[in-house]
Amino acid sequence: MRSALFLLIKGKFMETFSKITQSFKNQSFMKTIGAQLDLVDDGKVIISVKLKQNMMQQHGFGHAGVTFSIGDSAAGYAALTKMEEHQEVLTSEMKIHLLSPADGKILKAVGSVLKTGKRLIVVKSDIYSIKDEKEKMVATMLGTMVPSIVSS
Amino acid sequence: MRSALFLLIKGKFMETFSKITQSFKNQSFMKTIGAQLDLVDDGKVIISVKLKQNMMQQHGFGHAGVTFSIGDSAAGYAALTKMEEHQEVLTSEMKIHLLSPADGKILKAVGSVLKTGKRLIVVKSDIYSIKDEKEKMVATMLGTMVPSIVSS
Amino acid sequence: MRSALFLLIKGKFMETFSKITQSFKNQSFMKTIGAQLDLVDDGKVIISVKLKQNMMQQHGFGHAGVTFSIGDSAAGYAALTKMEEHQEVLTSEMKIHLLSPADGKILKAVGSVLKTGKRLIVVKSDIYSIKDEKEKMVATMLGTMVPSIVSS
Amino acid sequence: MRSALFLLIKGKFMETFSKITQSFKNQSFMKTIGAQLDLVDDGKVIISVKLKQNMMQQHGFGHAGVTFSIGDSAAGYAALTKMEEHQEVLTSEMKIHLLSPADGKILKAVGSVLKTGKRLIVVKSDIYSIKDEKEKMVATMLGTMVPSIVSS
Repeated sequence: MRSALFLLIKGKFMETFSKITQSFKNQSFMKTIGAQLDLVDDGKVIISVKLKQNMMQQHGFGHAGVTFSIGDSAAGYAALTKMEEHQEVLTSEMKIHLLSPADGKILKAVGSVLKTGKRLIVVKSDIYSIKDEKEKMVATMLGTMVPSIVSS
Repeated sequence: MRSALFLLIKGKFMETFSKITQSFKNQSFMKTIGAQLDLVDDGKVIISVKLKQNMMQQHGFGHAGVTFSIGDSAAGYAALTKMEEHQEVLTSEMKIHLLSPADGKILKAVGSVLKTGKRLIVVKSDIYSIKDEKEKMVATMLGTMVPSIVSS
Repeated sequence: MRSALFLLIKGKFMETFSKITQSFKNQSFMKTIGAQLDLVDDGKVIISVKLKQNMMQQHGFGHAGVTFSIGDSAAGYAALTKMEEHQEVLTSEMKIHLLSPADGKILKAVGSVLKTGKRLIVVKSDIYSIKDEKEKMVATMLGTMVPSIVSS
Repeated sequence: MRSALFLLIKGKFMETFSKITQSFKNQSFMKTIGAQLDLVDDGKVIISVKLKQNMMQQHGFGHAGVTFSIGDSAAGYAALTKMEEHQEVLTSEMKIHLLSPADGKILKAVGSVLKTGKRLIVVKSDIYSIKDEKEKMVATMLGTMVPSIVSS
C-alpha cells in the first residue's frame, strides 16, 4: 500500500501530506495499537491496524475502542486535507454504529468528508474487517470536526 | 476505591458482579490501556484509567479512543446490571461529544442507564479528567446497548 | 413520479407496498405537512414535501422539524421493506446533520438500509432541497429502527 | 405558565428574552404545530405543544417529528441565552432517542446547555409527555449548536 502514498506527495499537496504524517507520528496511542497510515488523498484518508491478542473485547473480537480510534483518526485527517496549512482539526462529536463483530486479522478505516464549512467539517468513516482477503464493513461513523490553530 | 466494590458484592447482586468482573478481565484491550473497574452498582458502573505517555493524541492529551473505550465499557456494564443472568450486552451505537482536552492524570468514566427495554437499553456515560484532585467533565456519551445470549 | 410506483407493485412486493402506503396514510402528521410517498423499493423509500409558508424556521428556510420528519419516515419505511409481513418498525434513535439551509421549493428524503438484523435495522436518509430543478443535499441522517409487532 | 415568563424579563436578561420571543414568533412551523414558549431562563428554555389529531404517527401517538421540532427549538434557544446580543444559533447536528410512545395530551421539551464554547455549544433536550397530570420522559436529545450572525 505504501506505493499509493508516494504517488500523492507531489506538488502543493506535499505540505498537507507532511503535516498529516507528522501529526500521526505524534499520536502515541496510534503507535500503541500499531496503526499505520495507508493513504492520504484529497478528502480521503485510510488507516489500518493488525488486530492483536491485546486489542480484544470479552468475546475475542476486536475492541470497539480500537475501531473507534482508527475511524476517528481517519475522519479527522480526511478533514485536515481540506484545511489551511496553519490549521488543525479536533473531533467535536462522533457517532459510531457497530454493524458486525470485528473478527478479521486487519481493521481498515476509510475516512472521508461530507461537507466542508468554515466553522466545522462533517465527516464519515467506514471501518472494514479483512479476513481471508475478504472485506466486511463492521462499523460506520458520522461526526463533526472543528478547525483549530496549530500551536507550536 | 476498591473498598467500595466489596460493599456491593452481597446478596443476589453477587452474580451480576462476578459476571461483570469476569467479562472485564476477558477484555484484553482494557488491560492494554490499564483500565480498572472501580464500582459496580445497580445501573451504574465506574471505570478509570491512568493516562500514560503511550495513550496520547498529537497534542499530548489523552486520546479520544481511550476516552471512548472506557466510556463505552462503563455504559455497557451499567446496562448489564439490568439484564438476566444468562444475558450479555453489545454496543449497537454510541455518540460521544468531546467537551474539553483530557489533560489530567486519570480519566474516569461513569456509565449509567437511561431506559431499560426488552430489545435495547439506552445508556449514557460521562467521562471526567482528574488533575490535582479536581474533576472536569471531558466527554459525554449517549448510546444503545442490545442484549445478547452468553455463548460459553 | 407516480409512474415509478406502479412499476413496483407487482408480485410479492405488493403486500409490503400496500402495508407502507396504508401506514403512511395513517400518519396524520404526514398529511399536515403535505408529505407524499414518491417511491417504495426494496430497501429504499422516497418521501417529498412542498415547503409552504407555514413550515419555516425564523429565517424563512424550511424548518429542521420538517426535514427530520420526512427523513425519519423515509428511513423507517425503507427498513419496513425488509421486515416480515406482520412486523412494523419504530425509530429507536436518529442523528441528523443539517448541512445547508433548506431554501428550495421541495424537500426530498431518500431513505435506505445499511444493515438488517433480527433485533434492529441501521438506516440512513439523505435529504435534498430542490430549487430551479437543481438538487442540493441539505441534511443526512443515520439511525436505528427496531421491529415491532402490528397490533390491529 | 405565562406568569413564570414575566418574572424573568427584568434587567439585562430582557434583551435576550425579547430576541427569543421574537425569533419564536418568526418560526411559522412552531405556530403550525401550536407550540408555545413556556420558560426562558439562563441556559434553559421550555417549549410545549398540545398533541392534536393532525400531529400523529400511524399508531395514534405523537409524531417523532413533533417531538424533534420542539426539542430542537428548546435546545437552540437555551444555547441562544448564552450568546452575545447580535448572535443567533443554528442546529449543526442533533441525536434523538425515542424512549416511550408520546401518548399524552401535552408534549413538553426542556432544553439546556451542557457546554458553551466560542465555536459551538453542546446542548440537550428532554421531552416529556403529560397525561393525567403525570409526566413521562418520552425522548432525550443531545446535539450541537453553532453561533451565527443576525442578518436583518
